[in-house]
Amino acid sequence: MMFHKLFNPSSIAVIGASRDEKKIGNVVLKNLKAMGYGGKIFPINPKEDEILGFKVYRSILDIDNNVDIAVITLSSSQSIPAVKECVKKEVPFVIVIAGGFSETGEEGKRLENELLESIKDSNTRIIGPNTVGIYIPRANVSTALTLPERTSLPGDGHIGFISQSGALGLLTMDMISEYGLGVSGFINIGNRIDMSEIELIDYFMKDDKTRSIALYLETFKEGRKFYETVKEISRKKPIILLKGGRTDAGARAASLHTGAIASNDSIVEGMAKQAGIVRAYTELELFDYAKVLAYQKPLKGDRIAIVTTAGGVGVVTSDYITSQVNGVGLKLARLKDETKMNIKKNIVPFGSAENPVDLTADGSTDQYDTVLGLLNKDENVDGIIVYALYQTAKIDIDLIDVLEKYMKEKPMVAGIMGSKIGKKMLIEAEKRKIPAYPDIERTVKAMHALYIRGKYIGD
Amino acid sequence: MMFHKLFNPSSIAVIGASRDEKKIGNVVLKNLKAMGYGGKIFPINPKEDEILGFKVYRSILDIDNNVDIAVITLSSSQSIPAVKECVKKEVPFVIVIAGGFSETGEEGKRLENELLESIKDSNTRIIGPNTVGIYIPRANVSTALTLPERTSLPGDGHIGFISQSGALGLLTMDMISEYGLGVSGFINIGNRIDMSEIELIDYFMKDDKTRSIALYLETFKEGRKFYETVKEISRKKPIILLKGGRTDAGARAASLHTGAIASNDSIVEGMAKQAGIVRAYTELELFDYAKVLAYQKPLKGDRIAIVTTAGGVGVVTSDYITSQVNGVGLKLARLKDETKMNIKKNIVPFGSAENPVDLTADGSTDQYDTVLGLLNKDENVDGIIVYALYQTAKIDIDLIDVLEKYMKEKPMVAGIMGSKIGKKMLIEAEKRKIPAYPDIERTVKAMHALYIRGKYIGD
Repeated sequence: MMFHKLFNPSSIAVIGASRDEKKIGNVVLKNLKAMGYGGKIFPINPKEDEILGFKVYRSILDIDNNVDIAVITLSSSQSIPAVKECVKKEVPFVIVIAGGFSETGEEGKRLENELLESIKDSNTRIIGPNTVGIYIPRANVSTALTLPERTSLPGDGHIGFISQSGALGLLTMDMISEYGLGVSGFINIGNRIDMSEIELIDYFMKDDKTRSIALYLETFKEGRKFYETVKEISRKKPIILLKGGRTDAGARAASLHTGAIASNDSIVEGMAKQAGIVRAYTELELFDYAKVLAYQKPLKGDRIAIVTTAGGVGVVTSDYITSQVNGVGLKLARLKDETKMNIKKNIVPFGSAENPVDLTADGSTDQYDTVLGLLNKDENVDGIIVYALYQTAKIDIDLIDVLEKYMKEKPMVAGIMGSKIGKKMLIEAEKRKIPAYPDIERTVKAMHALYIRGKYIGD
Repeated sequence: MMFHKLFNPSSIAVIGASRDEKKIGNVVLKNLKAMGYGGKIFPINPKEDEILGFKVYRSILDIDNNVDIAVITLSSSQSIPAVKECVKKEVPFVIVIAGGFSETGEEGKRLENELLESIKDSNTRIIGPNTVGIYIPRANVSTALTLPERTSLPGDGHIGFISQSGALGLLTMDMISEYGLGVSGFINIGNRIDMSEIELIDYFMKDDKTRSIALYLETFKEGRKFYETVKEISRKKPIILLKGGRTDAGARAASLHTGAIASNDSIVEGMAKQAGIVRAYTELELFDYAKVLAYQKPLKGDRIAIVTTAGGVGVVTSDYITSQVNGVGLKLARLKDETKMNIKKNIVPFGSAENPVDLTADGSTDQYDTVLGLLNKDENVDGIIVYALYQTAKIDIDLIDVLEKYMKEKPMVAGIMGSKIGKKMLIEAEKRKIPAYPDIERTVKAMHALYIRGKYIGD
């Protein structure tokens, strides 16, 4: 596979490696070492012999070994001759970290053209410039300038993440790592003069580890080609897009940020609908949807059943499911009489056997098991939102086993709320690939993402 | 003040106190002891002499001391004679925990009427029935059946919380305690046959500790009186309402939950607008808005400036601020030329001196200080969203000092994202009463809550 070495490099060169702890070339090297990267590391610096215990090479051409990835930590103008040497060395992937290219004006644009020219007719591909590079947990590789004491990076997982913005990408990964959600790879395409989102989407499509693809884009490199690629791929793997610059104000901000030229959002919206893209509008939604679409099947209808032990949570969820404004506009399932009768037999008299099914604070793991079984058999129910609220005494850790048991049946999303036990149980849910969320809104919106996908896949 | 003893009780009786760890009367007593309640505790049980080290009384009438609060942990029918004894003892506040009243049908309704009848012409007030009671951090009092290992309760704070639902209230408090947000008191009014939201809003209005009032209601006890009370009070203290049952489906769920009769949501919406209520649509929004309104002044216009070190965060925030759909429909401030010139002098060349102001990963505490100073002087700016993203090396703990410094100037809301350092800094922000949020959407929506309030107050 063309990109295999980018995701599984056996050797990495750091061009501009430095002893100076303030230099990028030091941080990148230190991070590679600290992450436990198992391949060969070749620091390049014409004036040093050893840095951080590694033998230093004067030039990449002096290395007596293949180099799969070269990370160039030099300034924009110095990066050009460095790339030329990489081409000579036949390095397949070069990451150009420096900014100061087209995003800064005419002179930068000229440098950027020169950079692109330098790989012409070669097999060398450039990631960037103006990028934090890549983070590939499976290979223990990160080229990002994050300090481990400042940023948590997520573990190995099933979401392929392609971002035009480095900082937004890193930040969001820091956020999601809290509950143990992982990524199959993160690529910050930066100014993407060469390698673009299109090829990377194609890679993640073919990558077995990847189950959904999350995109942060402010522009599309080639709109038509993007559309055609995504339309094809999204039939097989879910693609979620956070499009920065969807408003005039956002587009102006994007043009200052990456030099993006605004695309009318109604065009983006039309493309998303036709190409089966699920749109996210915040960094959290991007991963909330990527997670649910990685772990759950699409929804085949809009009739949702709710199981709760807290009546008020059932009420607010009903509102959020059915409302068009401050809600997602789905429906509450009307349970069959038989279902209701059977539920009634199994829960306390003051509970509710109507939808939302309310087990009350007396709800037990066995009752969840029975009720989920009955709802899965009821053909009036398309999907199930189940709240696992560990605040009450009769619910214990084994409730998560029951949720896991029903993961293979109808589309189900869990809400697990509260900071005391809730957080631990969210991490446990993540381990078992149960899509679970810490509040009502995120739980309901995740179910809605399954609906959006179902509408596309079902066509 | 009429409710003083409810919030500052010097003695509490637990009627139905029990040795049996599975009984409510045991849990309530244990929790009171564990919380370190400093007043006198009187367990009542005709068959015991001592429980958990406390002397037990046969009847509340045997107690040779005033009783400020009696918590009745008996069944619905047993609760009625117990209340009658409390009336004889002239207990000012009685909490009736039992369910099984009007929410369960005709027989329950009859019992409920009898309960209400039993306090007629007395000075005894009933909280509930069908309630988890109260949580008053300032007095170390909780009557809720929460297990400390299952539920975190928030510390002493500035938000008065009145909830018709016990479980939703406790859950939400468990959620918010994560970042150190506190409450000035929580009252679960339950079936509110006597004490209602109206009187409690009035109490929180007069309570110096309380800076904003958060309500979860599925119905209004007396709609007209509620409106008139709130309209008056909300001029002085912000009131935030999460109205359960705002849709047909939600209203049906509410009628199963608390026996609520639906009120048309357009009526609720009209009332909210005229009475100056800020509406929340989820349990998180309820406290996000209660927090920002407790700590910040209202916004006097709709022109927002953004300060960020991550370009993509600036872009997505611009979209969310200005969009009507998946956004809040405010405006981005157009900075004065002078402001932009001065910002430009103080940030790196590749940064942006336009709004959103992007300090880039080179952003330092000093630059934040300068930029916030300039934005506060620019009369084109009404409010400021500032991101404190601790992932980059040049930002350190002292950035929070800079945020604190500008808290007294224009309305400002902070976004502090990421799980590694972000969480610690959110807790630090909370200590300093800086309204800060862990993602873009919540940050922007909090600013919008200041705008809604500003429109009401400014009229």
